[in-house]
Amino acid sequence: MIEPRTLKGFRDFLPKEARKRQYVMDTLRKVFESYGFEPLETPALEYEEILTGKYGEEGDKLMYRFEDNGGRRVALRYDQTVPLARVAAQYGSTGSPDGIPMPFKRYQIQPVWRAENTQKGRYREFVQCDIDTVGVNSALADAEIIAVIATAYQKLGFTNFKVLVNDRSVFSDLSTQAIIIIDKLKKIGEEEVIQELSEINVSKEQFERVKNASPTDRITNILTAVKQLGIDTSCITFEPTLARGLDYYTGLIVEVEIEGFSGSVGGGGRYDKLIGMFGGQDIPAVGFAFGFDRTIEAMDALDLFSQDLTTTQILVTVFSPELLPQSLDICTQLRSNNINTEIYLDANAKMEKQLKYADKKKILYVMFVGPEEVEKNQVTVKNMKTGEQKKISKDNLASIV
Amino acid sequence: MIEPRTLKGFRDFLPKEARKRQYVMDTLRKVFESYGFEPLETPALEYEEILTGKYGEEGDKLMYRFEDNGGRRVALRYDQTVPLARVAAQYGSTGSPDGIPMPFKRYQIQPVWRAENTQKGRYREFVQCDIDTVGVNSALADAEIIAVIATAYQKLGFTNFKVLVNDRSVFSDLSTQAIIIIDKLKKIGEEEVIQELSEINVSKEQFERVKNASPTDRITNILTAVKQLGIDTSCITFEPTLARGLDYYTGLIVEVEIEGFSGSVGGGGRYDKLIGMFGGQDIPAVGFAFGFDRTIEAMDALDLFSQDLTTTQILVTVFSPELLPQSLDICTQLRSNNINTEIYLDANAKMEKQLKYADKKKILYVMFVGPEEVEKNQVTVKNMKTGEQKKISKDNLASIV
Repeated sequence: MIEPRTLKGFRDFLPKEARKRQYVMDTLRKVFESYGFEPLETPALEYEEILTGKYGEEGDKLMYRFEDNGGRRVALRYDQTVPLARVAAQYGSTGSPDGIPMPFKRYQIQPVWRAENTQKGRYREFVQCDIDTVGVNSALADAEIIAVIATAYQKLGFTNFKVLVNDRSVFSDLSTQAIIIIDKLKKIGEEEVIQELSEINVSKEQFERVKNASPTDRITNILTAVKQLGIDTSCITFEPTLARGLDYYTGLIVEVEIEGFSGSVGGGGRYDKLIGMFGGQDIPAVGFAFGFDRTIEAMDALDLFSQDLTTTQILVTVFSPELLPQSLDICTQLRSNNINTEIYLDANAKMEKQLKYADKKKILYVMFVGPEEVEKNQVTVKNMKTGEQKKISKDNLASIV
Repeated sequence: MIEPRTLKGFRDFLPKEARKRQYVMDTLRKVFESYGFEPLETPALEYEEILTGKYGEEGDKLMYRFEDNGGRRVALRYDQTVPLARVAAQYGSTGSPDGIPMPFKRYQIQPVWRAENTQKGRYREFVQCDIDTVGVNSALADAEIIAVIATAYQKLGFTNFKVLVNDRSVFSDLSTQAIIIIDKLKKIGEEEVIQELSEINVSKEQFERVKNASPTDRITNILTAVKQLGIDTSCITFEPTLARGLDYYTGLIVEVEIEGFSGSVGGGGRYDKLIGMFGGQDIPAVGFAFGFDRTIEAMDALDLFSQDLTTTQILVTVFSPELLPQSLDICTQLRSNNINTEIYLDANAKMEKQLKYADKKKILYVMFVGPEEVEKNQVTVKNMKTGEQKKISKDNLASIV
């Protein structure tokens, strides 16, 4: 017999977890669409040459790559930015009437695969949730991304989140190596940063200049627009030492932190030199990647899923097989009132077993009709949390929820 | 330069198509949840041994299989039934308090990969959309599946769909070979079926007995329960020659056809011998797979997407850069009324260019404020379909939608 097990680094999402994911996805999508971002889906498999060499040596190593049955070298999606760049080149020609209208504002919520070291608690399949605006380099486009971020975390229920912003130009007279050191400030502390910088001949004064930099004109313009977009900007902090490791940001750099939850839950910025990689000419772009799993972890840690996420609101139990038609009738009535309703599927099961099922599935209300209820045109309702039980009129069932 | 292209047999879904897919998914999910089905997600990659040998020779051939960087033999998800069987064995032990409560009613909407012959117009990545009830063999469970099917196709806007049902026991005295021939009735016609059956010594009388069979007791019980579930059963037809090719159905067999659209858009049935494959003991199950792409094709063919699926309802154009704050103010007001609103992201663009963008994106309304409008506390609204343009009070913007 084959042992039923998931691959190392992969996991199943049983209903309880899957519902949370669905809720977060729905909430984010709604915010994205309220700002006019539109969905895009790209295939899980791409020609290997499309993906390799785009994520550094580490990326090529962690990428799932293989030869398909037709002898093609293929690779599994590693992120959503390179596929976006491919799509922009493939359909985005501004000259073509069928091309994607620019600016192209898309969101994309799909899994990516990376053969990460699982000992670090990382998974090899995880959902990325990206918004990007392609084809325009205005401060307003940057501001809109920040507005979406702030609205999204607020709608998810976070109250103490921080949107850290920076401008790549703050580092303009520093080497990549120096930037990487400064970026570690939160991890290793100021003293260590200064020490490491001195080893590559960057002075303490140069570091202090970055650390104490004022917001650039661009950042000021962006923040003005964010305010004009109706966003409370008190959650936004200018952090001149923020670099997000990556080399490709050309302007705005942004990262989100949650108070009481270590590390960032998402990041992004402006990258005007990347989207053109397949088309031969630069296309400006700005975007943000919501760390989907990290955000759910943070919501779990802060107990933000307290709202009732159970799919089923009411379980109708079956008093006896003869009363099944009356029981099903209740279900129909509840469903027509948009209440998710489940019937216990074995009419011969003991009531105790049926209640246990409701309990296990954390369904709040149980309803049933016995002979007495049928006679009086009533239904018995039990609140599974309080244990309270009462009879209500069959004509007014939906009022219970 | 690397040519931007998708792999043979794979495709991108640009916003217009992706929105349709999202709409169908949301509609189906809502119906599933109204009956108490809950989401399940399983990983795209499984140990190869979990998947091979489950789908016949053809399946093993079409499956994407490879060795990962750690030397494990892995395979991409080929369907959602085998992963469900794995999940049932891995977490479903009724003895365990943390086990999945039975009956387990789950829905699963994820892509699967099959290296199909693309000349037949088939894609190698496609979404499957399954509902299954595991752990109970009542006629009520079967009826519920049919009720979900009928409700789902109705909610998607289909008026002339047919739910064909059969009972495997109709074929009880026939060989698999004979069943396969009878199953081809619609394709090859009665004469040819009788001819092919005679070649394996199955008489015309035996065929006629199947063809004219009356609904079995089980089917009668199922249809009674479907009616009690409040479903108009006029869409359901007993079709005793329906076998759906597959060997594994043990009771109900079901298939959905759309009038004016050839072939089926989904199928399923009861399969009591399959879910136990990893656990060593039979677990009863009944389910249905909605043909996601086929359903969308049928909706396209019947023009059922006529409703406005554009994400953005209103584009606010920018009359001049100085009036950007007032323009953003309109956006905020509209968004707070749950209207998806886009601002044109380049405040310096000519109005003509901005209107062209709305036109290309099929956004119905364009709004803007010029100096005159600011003075009178008004906003100009243009209906892009009719060309009609009028001024409305800024205090009542949401009324336009």
